[in-house]
Amino acid sequence: MTGPRLTVWPVTGIGEIRPGDQLGDIVADACRAEPNGPLLDGDVLVVTQKVVSKAEGRMVEIDPDDPLSHKSLVEDEAVRIVRRRGDLIITETSHGFVCANSGIDLSNVERGYAALLPIDSDRSARRIRDIVRARLGVEVGVIVSDTFGRPWRRGLTDVAIGVAGVAAVVDLRGTPDSLGRTMQVTEVCVADEIASAAELVMGKSSGVPVAVVRGCDPSWMRDSSIGEIVRPPSEDLFR
Amino acid sequence: MTGPRLTVWPVTGIGEIRPGDQLGDIVADACRAEPNGPLLDGDVLVVTQKVVSKAEGRMVEIDPDDPLSHKSLVEDEAVRIVRRRGDLIITETSHGFVCANSGIDLSNVERGYAALLPIDSDRSARRIRDIVRARLGVEVGVIVSDTFGRPWRRGLTDVAIGVAGVAAVVDLRGTPDSLGRTMQVTEVCVADEIASAAELVMGKSSGVPVAVVRGCDPSWMRDSSIGEIVRPPSEDLFR
Repeated sequence: MTGPRLTVWPVTGIGEIRPGDQLGDIVADACRAEPNGPLLDGDVLVVTQKVVSKAEGRMVEIDPDDPLSHKSLVEDEAVRIVRRRGDLIITETSHGFVCANSGIDLSNVERGYAALLPIDSDRSARRIRDIVRARLGVEVGVIVSDTFGRPWRRGLTDVAIGVAGVAAVVDLRGTPDSLGRTMQVTEVCVADEIASAAELVMGKSSGVPVAVVRGCDPSWMRDSSIGEIVRPPSEDLFR
Repeated sequence: MTGPRLTVWPVTGIGEIRPGDQLGDIVADACRAEPNGPLLDGDVLVVTQKVVSKAEGRMVEIDPDDPLSHKSLVEDEAVRIVRRRGDLIITETSHGFVCANSGIDLSNVERGYAALLPIDSDRSARRIRDIVRARLGVEVGVIVSDTFGRPWRRGLTDVAIGVAGVAAVVDLRGTPDSLGRTMQVTEVCVADEIASAAELVMGKSSGVPVAVVRGCDPSWMRDSSIGEIVRPPSEDLFR
């Protein structure tokens, strides 16, 4: 007998993704072949931004010998430069994300190309969710994840940049704590925590772009959008 | 047959913790009684700051009717005020953490008391690890976790504030990516990701203060310190 638990596994067997690939079909096929068994209602699929961007044709050519060709892209993709020091540029993107280099990444991308963020990662997540429902008959949540740095703490962690069918932020304000007192403020960003849990099984160098997270609280499975996470500049103390 | 996977479960049956309690013994006993089975070498125990602070007597009396008695504590515990707006104070603590209210928390704490952060959470984690080894004969990693906000993104996530026997940051710089290119910068903060994964099964209001994470990469099980995560002010763009 086992108690309640969360399980997380990598979805292997997904090859190189190319522009125009129907990512939802590829993910559904790979999940069907997984040794951990079929997807179930309430599972959450975490899909890395890189494969979403590739499938959606968000690759742009850069001059591999000219670092400035990449830097000008960073500025093109930014709505605000938040900080700049040396080669490091922290920007705010059109989506409202604050991250290094407007989220543009060169790793796991062919030399001479850069991957821009998806235009609308919620839509990307919804499309995968819809295809998985149609193909496999299960209601899953989908999170598009990316790897961001943060102030004050070293090391990158994976966070959500798009969500479908799973809460981004869960509001526990007003829930009594374990001593029966009403809690002050506890909005938990479960989508970022799920993205981080998924990163632990994907690994940065192993090229596994999808993971399954099973065992999330059923109340988290609902309509949502990344707007739950993006903090408007007026609320923010650090830009 | 199942493939590789990470499993995470809450450790239940831990009652209210009081000053002077030997937390390592309590955690070891609770793990032994868990329906998910005995701990194994390489498991990571995530223990919330609140119970560590309680066991270590880091509770201080405050006037429950005077919000200023709490606010003066926040300033006492800070080495730097990073931002202030209305009731919200973002401080840097003596440990180097940048967080709201110097990490002082009133939820899940008896009325009239506040819980300060442990003086040295790495030491707290080591003590639990040593007791678990002595009592149960297993080599586990231990992470002391706390719930922090972050700039630019709504919702709190759990992060590591102390580590023992498990890496805080894993450095993948120089590791070839899946296309054989050498990756630029990928230092992953696995301790924060493990803390976040654990939060998903603990819940803020259910009073479960410990979780087990099984299936971490064996190479992460090593000596470590929270200093791997704390970014020195000279490297930081946001204070």
